[in-house]
Amino acid sequence: MVIGSIPAWESDGETRILLCRRAIEPRYGYWTLPAGFMENGETTAEAAIRETEEEAGAHIQLHPLFSLLNVPHVQQVHMFYRARLLDLDYAAGTESLEVKLFSEAEIPWSDIAFQTVTHTLKFFFADTAKIREGGSYDFHTQDITLPQAGIKP
Amino acid sequence: MVIGSIPAWESDGETRILLCRRAIEPRYGYWTLPAGFMENGETTAEAAIRETEEEAGAHIQLHPLFSLLNVPHVQQVHMFYRARLLDLDYAAGTESLEVKLFSEAEIPWSDIAFQTVTHTLKFFFADTAKIREGGSYDFHTQDITLPQAGIKP
Repeated sequence: MVIGSIPAWESDGETRILLCRRAIEPRYGYWTLPAGFMENGETTAEAAIRETEEEAGAHIQLHPLFSLLNVPHVQQVHMFYRARLLDLDYAAGTESLEVKLFSEAEIPWSDIAFQTVTHTLKFFFADTAKIREGGSYDFHTQDITLPQAGIKP
Repeated sequence: MVIGSIPAWESDGETRILLCRRAIEPRYGYWTLPAGFMENGETTAEAAIRETEEEAGAHIQLHPLFSLLNVPHVQQVHMFYRARLLDLDYAAGTESLEVKLFSEAEIPWSDIAFQTVTHTLKFFFADTAKIREGGSYDFHTQDITLPQAGIKP
């Protein structure tokens, strides 16, 4: 079980998301949301906060669970919580080359490490657009059924 | 990861839920929703359908994920999908003593095997009441932080 967050920073009416560039394999050098394997004795929410602190040095307030993605060919389930970034004092952890805020237009879509992250970001910005028109965030699920190019299942 | 379903049967304007009485430890003889450990290579939805078939011999149409409950002291996460029971040809599997439909008033609350099932059933019937007044089902999360009486963590 891989748990992460979508750390959002609101300013000037725009939502920016904190991404980490991976310093480890698989997908070294590609961008991802802060996430990692759940540890024994912690809750999914605690795992999301811990991984965001470890990988992005970021302090967040956790919001509800936003996405659950099955990746059966690697026997994983990925989950992402929405989160509010509390300050801009983030810094790359040992598993990240850099961490950086991206608006929707700035997201490096072709350099995202994992399909689960791509889907989650697309769900997130689609909901953000709906919210400007009075909607609300939904909970999203998605099955990733084919291996990604470049990743051994 | 423990995945199950909430198999619902609608008739005469009432919602009944299919519960299984456990033929195995822990909590032999207590009632539960059909659920079990996710297996390698399957999705959470596939696990819910398989466990419902194995434990209750029941055929369901799966609806969206309804609840996610953390049980960190036993290093588990439980998830339940809403589901529509397609027919009444259910039958106890090898891990169940009997399977039976219960309306909200009939649920044996003091004989439910696990707190995660109790919470899920309470969330479910609360949402069912809201729906009669024009509401909709929500997605629910809950942390179970204390060991249950009778269960060794």
